[in-house]
Amino acid sequence: MKYSYVSHLYCPKCGNEYDTKQQHQLCTCGSPLLVEYDWDELKANVTPDDIAKRNPTLWRYHEMLPVENEQNVVSQGEGMTPLLSMPTIGKDMGVEKLYMKDEGLVPTGTFKARGAAVGVSKAKEVGIEEFAMPTNGNAGAAWALYGARAGLKSTIVMPQDAPKITRNEVALSGANLYLVNGLISDAGKIVGKAVKEFGLYDASTLKEPYRIEGKKTMGLEIAEQMGWKFPDVILYPTGGGVGLIGIYKALNELKNLGWVKGELPRLVAVQATGCAPIVKAWEEKKSESEFWPDSSTQAFGINVPKAIGDFLVLDAVYKTDGCAIAVDDQDMLDEQERIAQMEGSFICPEGAAVFVAIRQLRQQDWIKEGETVVALNTGAGIKYPDTVNIDVPILEKDDSIKVASN
Amino acid sequence: MKYSYVSHLYCPKCGNEYDTKQQHQLCTCGSPLLVEYDWDELKANVTPDDIAKRNPTLWRYHEMLPVENEQNVVSQGEGMTPLLSMPTIGKDMGVEKLYMKDEGLVPTGTFKARGAAVGVSKAKEVGIEEFAMPTNGNAGAAWALYGARAGLKSTIVMPQDAPKITRNEVALSGANLYLVNGLISDAGKIVGKAVKEFGLYDASTLKEPYRIEGKKTMGLEIAEQMGWKFPDVILYPTGGGVGLIGIYKALNELKNLGWVKGELPRLVAVQATGCAPIVKAWEEKKSESEFWPDSSTQAFGINVPKAIGDFLVLDAVYKTDGCAIAVDDQDMLDEQERIAQMEGSFICPEGAAVFVAIRQLRQQDWIKEGETVVALNTGAGIKYPDTVNIDVPILEKDDSIKVASN
Repeated sequence: MKYSYVSHLYCPKCGNEYDTKQQHQLCTCGSPLLVEYDWDELKANVTPDDIAKRNPTLWRYHEMLPVENEQNVVSQGEGMTPLLSMPTIGKDMGVEKLYMKDEGLVPTGTFKARGAAVGVSKAKEVGIEEFAMPTNGNAGAAWALYGARAGLKSTIVMPQDAPKITRNEVALSGANLYLVNGLISDAGKIVGKAVKEFGLYDASTLKEPYRIEGKKTMGLEIAEQMGWKFPDVILYPTGGGVGLIGIYKALNELKNLGWVKGELPRLVAVQATGCAPIVKAWEEKKSESEFWPDSSTQAFGINVPKAIGDFLVLDAVYKTDGCAIAVDDQDMLDEQERIAQMEGSFICPEGAAVFVAIRQLRQQDWIKEGETVVALNTGAGIKYPDTVNIDVPILEKDDSIKVASN
Repeated sequence: MKYSYVSHLYCPKCGNEYDTKQQHQLCTCGSPLLVEYDWDELKANVTPDDIAKRNPTLWRYHEMLPVENEQNVVSQGEGMTPLLSMPTIGKDMGVEKLYMKDEGLVPTGTFKARGAAVGVSKAKEVGIEEFAMPTNGNAGAAWALYGARAGLKSTIVMPQDAPKITRNEVALSGANLYLVNGLISDAGKIVGKAVKEFGLYDASTLKEPYRIEGKKTMGLEIAEQMGWKFPDVILYPTGGGVGLIGIYKALNELKNLGWVKGELPRLVAVQATGCAPIVKAWEEKKSESEFWPDSSTQAFGINVPKAIGDFLVLDAVYKTDGCAIAVDDQDMLDEQERIAQMEGSFICPEGAAVFVAIRQLRQQDWIKEGETVVALNTGAGIKYPDTVNIDVPILEKDDSIKVASN
């Protein structure tokens, strides 16, 4: 029995193929590469029942992940996050079958750990010793920490305005950390120069082919947790969009395996009104997005003015009859508070954006009555303490509380 | 088949018994109450194999938890956190079989979610509508958010110096939050007055009997994750000490059930040198601790100058041939950094304290060569961003990185 049924890398634009035993970045044509597997062989040797008996991490799907030797797996127990029922806020929005996939419960507190776990493991497997990447914070934190566990050196460049906690994570890991007075696109240019000059492995989004495989496990888990069924709609806060690309890949793989039957869920890309290049492209029925100038949003993880995988995100949205929608920052913060008060979950602003989108799409009847809807919360609210503004009474030791409940 | 085999509450000091259908706080004699189960009936109806098939949350042990009606369960997917191998730091300390139970991967980012999940669920079951509690931050955050999910009102009082993120969690939940210019013991006095004046349920540590049951699931999980075996040593950062009391209770229950054979692990209470009442009592072979004046430590969760359950903590340490040890704040911060660099885990200072203790106890040969050791990391490092001090170079958009690796 093989640990992985990985077959090769292929280019979704020009069809070129590459060997997974070697180090690869983009296709020679400039497109990101995707991972293919020996599906017939896999299907003959693995069943959903086998998977049900395994430990609750994303490595339970190891046959459809790219790491070939289990010894190379770099894990901190990531994956199999809760798929939580959200009955109170669901009722409030008129979406009775509302679930939240809560990616706050992974190492480093965001879904980026999935991409880092698989990406770093495969980097180790193909002999990489040092990598560099730009980040809006959370991906860099995850890669730096998983890199440390793997014994890889890393150089991380992030915008000065990125969440401060992510700086601490990167610095504590021993990585080389630089801040840039600019956006993630500026950080990317600096990394690009360093990659060329020092011959580093470029771990930028989609410039290495394996983080998608880590993120696709969100799709695998949603299907397994629903009893190997698909929901009607999955919504995802879209910056670089790798999670959405990964989920779409996973859903197709499960359908082709025959493990799940029926139509794919409609996939929704949620962006902020201050940075909505995918939404604009979708509204104009285009297959690629344009650079969004002067982008700005408190939901830092989705402040990506031009995603290298935009054409794959748009393809997933078009093929599943999904849509793309932009929401306001203030609406996110209001929804974040409602979710805490109604469901007890302190989610990140990117996750809150998804719930705003659900509320609006239900009002527009794009989400129909009775449909099953899954919201991706991509991270824990505790990583973004500054989104909550509070004014708290301060007592002296001998004081008393005047009123018990409000 | 019953959902829970809970039988009654009993007093470990005077032996008095109480009905779990009613609301209870301390025993009339002033001692905390513990939960008892119908073990013979449970043993006849449940096996470890049954449990292995269930979802990865602490509710997989529902027969040995106090909630009788599944409808009352208030869950956010807490429990079955990773038991991670720590080979690099383990080798560095001469403890080759070193594991970390990572409680950062729960809602609210600390193990307090376990106590809150079970405590709030049972509070709901016995008809409580409003509770109050003092907290060093994390317990209050967990109770406020789980309380919100359950529809319970809460009043939370925390020291002004408690981690700021926990303020935001409490405030966002809609709870009544007060800060006090003092310690948790001062917050406790203010809560005590409010409880009397407004007839609130007192959810202070061990003044309600059920959070122990939530925390004992850490012990159940460690045993299950080791293949229903005990490690040689379990170390726990000890403030109020409820986790250690809970783990000790769990281990005894598993041994009495016959699910695990062999000697109980030696339990170690780890404190900070700036607040070490349990260590002092243990060194003096006393059964209770004394109030520790002017207590101070960066590991805020273990800044508890006098724990109401001190006698239960000391009893667990004595009965298992364990010990109590105090470590310095600076050592914690150094160890926190080493763990990030060697294992990729950003753990909390309380968790780091445990690793310092392991290093010292191994040097003293109290931990023997070849012993299996489990460290409890009680929370995610991201909840304590201020423990990391960093100095990062800032680049302009057109800058280049000068050196790739250090």
